[in-house]
Amino acid sequence: MPADIWSLRTFCIVTGGGKGLGYSIVVNLASRFASGSVIAIAGRTEANLLRTQEYVESHYPEISVQPLVVDLCLRDTYDDIFPTIFSLQSINAEDFQQVMLIHNAGTLGDITHTAIQQDDTRAVRRNLDLNIGSTMLLTAAFFKFFPDRTRFKTYVVNISSLCAIQPVKSFSMYCTGKAARDMFFRVMAEEEPDVRVLSYAPGPLLTSMTTHIIDHVGDKDTKQMFKDMKDNEQLLDCDTSMMKFVCLLEDDKFESGAHVDYYDVEKICDQ
Amino acid sequence: MPADIWSLRTFCIVTGGGKGLGYSIVVNLASRFASGSVIAIAGRTEANLLRTQEYVESHYPEISVQPLVVDLCLRDTYDDIFPTIFSLQSINAEDFQQVMLIHNAGTLGDITHTAIQQDDTRAVRRNLDLNIGSTMLLTAAFFKFFPDRTRFKTYVVNISSLCAIQPVKSFSMYCTGKAARDMFFRVMAEEEPDVRVLSYAPGPLLTSMTTHIIDHVGDKDTKQMFKDMKDNEQLLDCDTSMMKFVCLLEDDKFESGAHVDYYDVEKICDQ
Repeated sequence: MPADIWSLRTFCIVTGGGKGLGYSIVVNLASRFASGSVIAIAGRTEANLLRTQEYVESHYPEISVQPLVVDLCLRDTYDDIFPTIFSLQSINAEDFQQVMLIHNAGTLGDITHTAIQQDDTRAVRRNLDLNIGSTMLLTAAFFKFFPDRTRFKTYVVNISSLCAIQPVKSFSMYCTGKAARDMFFRVMAEEEPDVRVLSYAPGPLLTSMTTHIIDHVGDKDTKQMFKDMKDNEQLLDCDTSMMKFVCLLEDDKFESGAHVDYYDVEKICDQ
Repeated sequence: MPADIWSLRTFCIVTGGGKGLGYSIVVNLASRFASGSVIAIAGRTEANLLRTQEYVESHYPEISVQPLVVDLCLRDTYDDIFPTIFSLQSINAEDFQQVMLIHNAGTLGDITHTAIQQDDTRAVRRNLDLNIGSTMLLTAAFFKFFPDRTRFKTYVVNISSLCAIQPVKSFSMYCTGKAARDMFFRVMAEEEPDVRVLSYAPGPLLTSMTTHIIDHVGDKDTKQMFKDMKDNEQLLDCDTSMMKFVCLLEDDKFESGAHVDYYDVEKICDQ
């Protein structure tokens, strides 16, 4: 018998769903979600979103994907996002028994400079907007659209990082944003006992972000750390990390609001 | 013999230095700093800054106070702040042996609503700007003005809170900002071994902020918690908290970047 989570018709939105971990989140959920589920994927690059959509809809035709080209930190309002998706898909909130908001989008920010060199007012504000502000505002829009938590089993996932709890040289903006998000969702979990809130740190991943780090990071210790992980094949494939993530959701035993790291999850659920 | 910290001619800037804890920080440092030290106090309300200046300059005439009326989160650049202060005081960086940046300014944000109700785009961005962004940008401006850490003993203090490490219902914006700041300064401490970085949580204080919380906070448990602390006289006078703060600085044994709470400090230094 499938776990409850995979038997309920689900609406899910994944930010940054066009590539890397976001792509892997979408594909791994699509392969498990109940027929008739809809996954909205928000991102800045249309081509990436369309590629994700095409892959999912060809492999899992019972799942619909709605791409949404959007720069989340440039919006005056977020209230139109869910009505737009539901209108494009010709669906209603009543069609679903389960709703899921997955905050995956995020940016490293300037990793060439140290904390005390972060002097670009526009860049700092844009980074805080994207990594923290848009996460808050999209959450508010989501709960405005699905206000009745007695009707929907509701999950909110924050894709976190070890950087949320451990400082890393050259990662001042990234660590700050991840720590901020973890705390925001801890408060939310306290306030909303009927929402399942998870901050999942996916482990060190083999993505374009990691290549970018090795190529551009200012601090030589941080560079060496990532280079060593790559050379020693310690970087994880996104799908490997996702196996533990889907297991966390399926088991549904995590403490709401908790920061759970890939390496904290012992079990890998059956595929 | 006075500890080293009080024997060195010091330039110090305190944000939010006009009232509450900020006022107490300024007065407690002014009473200890070496003759010829200068304290700049940044804040939005000129009357409060002038009151602080008048008190300090009448009680400690060997200390100069420079008020700076400024809304820290509305600036395009922070680079003019230190040149302006130094020009107004007719002082030069070479006049000082010790420099100190104290980030005290901060705002509770909207405490009438829960995390999932934070839907005001402008309010969210302004809160992140003030509590996190302006802290980063003022830090960068400070180190641009005092680039040579071999010439100055350098302290950076982040006025933190228990809310940086413990979620509190209705305090989503405040907790998020405090967690973000703690992490930013932890990264900075890793990157700058020759700077002494301290995140000091001053304990629950008897200030106008506490009265505001009891009057306006949305969550009834949080309201009761603060009401109980007030009724049971557990709220600390700012000067009481400052006695432990100055002791931390004087002892100079804290781990750089650490979050140190009032209740973690056992010793109270001699007055």
